[in-house]
Amino acid sequence: MTGVRVAGVGLTHFGQHPERTGRDLFAEASQRAFEDAGVPRADVEQLNYGNFMGELSEHQGHQGPLMAEAAGLTAPATRYESACASSGVAVREAVKDIRNGEADVLLVGGAERMNNLGTAGTTEALAIAADDLYEVRAGMTFPAAYALMARAYFDQYGGSREDLAEIAVKNHDNALDNEFAQFQKAISVEDALDAPTIAAPLGLYDACPITDGASAAVLVSDEYADEHDLDAPVSVTGTGQGGDKMALQDRQFLARTPAAERAAEEAYDDAGVGPRDVSVAEVHDCFTIAEVLALEALDFYAPGEGIGAAARGETTRDGDRPVNLSGGLKAKGHPVGATGTSQVVEMTRLLRGDHPNSDAVPGDVGVTHNAGGTVASTTVHVLEVEE
Amino acid sequence: MTGVRVAGVGLTHFGQHPERTGRDLFAEASQRAFEDAGVPRADVEQLNYGNFMGELSEHQGHQGPLMAEAAGLTAPATRYESACASSGVAVREAVKDIRNGEADVLLVGGAERMNNLGTAGTTEALAIAADDLYEVRAGMTFPAAYALMARAYFDQYGGSREDLAEIAVKNHDNALDNEFAQFQKAISVEDALDAPTIAAPLGLYDACPITDGASAAVLVSDEYADEHDLDAPVSVTGTGQGGDKMALQDRQFLARTPAAERAAEEAYDDAGVGPRDVSVAEVHDCFTIAEVLALEALDFYAPGEGIGAAARGETTRDGDRPVNLSGGLKAKGHPVGATGTSQVVEMTRLLRGDHPNSDAVPGDVGVTHNAGGTVASTTVHVLEVEE
Repeated sequence: MTGVRVAGVGLTHFGQHPERTGRDLFAEASQRAFEDAGVPRADVEQLNYGNFMGELSEHQGHQGPLMAEAAGLTAPATRYESACASSGVAVREAVKDIRNGEADVLLVGGAERMNNLGTAGTTEALAIAADDLYEVRAGMTFPAAYALMARAYFDQYGGSREDLAEIAVKNHDNALDNEFAQFQKAISVEDALDAPTIAAPLGLYDACPITDGASAAVLVSDEYADEHDLDAPVSVTGTGQGGDKMALQDRQFLARTPAAERAAEEAYDDAGVGPRDVSVAEVHDCFTIAEVLALEALDFYAPGEGIGAAARGETTRDGDRPVNLSGGLKAKGHPVGATGTSQVVEMTRLLRGDHPNSDAVPGDVGVTHNAGGTVASTTVHVLEVEE
Repeated sequence: MTGVRVAGVGLTHFGQHPERTGRDLFAEASQRAFEDAGVPRADVEQLNYGNFMGELSEHQGHQGPLMAEAAGLTAPATRYESACASSGVAVREAVKDIRNGEADVLLVGGAERMNNLGTAGTTEALAIAADDLYEVRAGMTFPAAYALMARAYFDQYGGSREDLAEIAVKNHDNALDNEFAQFQKAISVEDALDAPTIAAPLGLYDACPITDGASAAVLVSDEYADEHDLDAPVSVTGTGQGGDKMALQDRQFLARTPAAERAAEEAYDDAGVGPRDVSVAEVHDCFTIAEVLALEALDFYAPGEGIGAAARGETTRDGDRPVNLSGGLKAKGHPVGATGTSQVVEMTRLLRGDHPNSDAVPGDVGVTHNAGGTVASTTVHVLEVEE
């Protein structure tokens, strides 16, 4: 079974681009990925594309062929939709196809256009990632759902708004030098605590912003990389996927995420590594509490012990295992369908040394964690760089 | 590489069920598939689920985990969206995963709820399968798009409304004994020609109806089937996928469907068969002209020669190669996300002998052809039954 290399990666700026279409954003990200890879478009055998809410924000489904065209491809294309984990699933299926000899070269990526809907419209659109019948019609929004999860966590394990604020501060700090980030602005714990409450105990700075953007990566087999003498030192060595009940009310846990635990376990087994081997992680911090749940699902911490990681300095850029050196969804932004692949883009650059925060990476093994809805679906990937 | 067996199949009635949710429909279809298969739900390792317009008809995305729950599964789930080819892609990816040893048992299927949107609402929702920027905003609807393709075909190769009417008559005739079909009603050529025009040259009887319904199939590896002594004589022996430009204006052909030609060529190569080996086909006749284009893409006929096939009796139930013995999308109905898997369900029953029209099947090799949009995406599968 061949290995899978990340031959090239590309992003658009993440931010407010309400005048740009999804195809325009994806054309830019994929162009950058091809330039970075040095792989001709004609060699691409398949596009795996993630998008979440194009039906609502652009009145556009069937984006597979549309985005293949935007990327200059004639290859067939498949659109994956798993809410905010859409392009994480696209990566996973590409990794499997390359390993299994179904293809040597795939383009993966995603795009999302959100700001044209406005804040209320986006909140309503995002709600399609929850159970419409049993959650959304009862008034649930995503800030409310993650607030419930935060309350459950605090009740069960302890923790405070200050602990969550430290995560926001860390991720804003990490984004300062990331030219693709929506917010390149430092904040303080006081700023976070003083911000308006959006759903208690969560304040405005506990939430990721509304973001337009796109991501793309060219994945190739070891054989292709060798034959074409590509400079592609980073490999995807592990992939995992997990699922859970859709609605929070049907879950066994509110303060744990079994879908992510299963995805992590599968990805670690697949790569032949354990959580202690991981040097750096990009996790799905759509809300600050979500980063805590991710750290525990990835088994970096036992349940109840992840909450203080940022405050203790363990996950900061000077820590032993920095988390969200890109700025995370919190500060870099979260164009939902683009995020899963975007994490792979950031991790690739962190590991190969051309990311502004690469100097903070203490080892060779990175993990990406991409969650859909209230973590009803998750993909986890392990990336490693040649020593 | 292991073979892939169809262990069990299930459908809901296809028709008007505006009061039923997608999850309700899929729960029923999957229940039937598990009963037919005799496979326990606990053995299922993944759900591959197709849905097209749930965001618009049910304000519901992220249907993977939702439908896994509806089917009684704890396995991870992925939603595929490729317009009307959504659950055809779900089948394709499941076939690859089983062959490649990624899993031994998958549930595939799809569901669509449409009638609750009404006719105008459904027409508007379906339009997201076309290019919003360059087609839909110019006023294009799917009846208009296929009318353009029919006009181009008539101009280039000849053909008449009568030829198309013969296809509608044939497919209505085929559905008479199909208890799952939306229309179990014979029509005449005169009925079709006298029906109101919806987009010249297409009349009402040239179009498939608006349908609610669901489909499911349990796919397993040869090893699993043998170990569990399953009665599963039908195998999926070939899979292919093709893509094309999204918008008609960007295509090289209006009266040919290269995406389907590529998918068919790949599926035939994969199965080691040719078009002359195929005994029976279920093709994507969303409009009568689409059946003609499918017959030619599958290389049953040269370009320009498929138009008269029904009138000549070659594709009728008494013909040499019956097409759409289920009634097709035209008479059985077209709940878009369910259609790709539904074709596999019908073909399985036709080949293994428990379909009301099985007596019309002249051989052991069947093909399914599932198209998205104006054939910007297509999947083709070859199914074979043990002799």
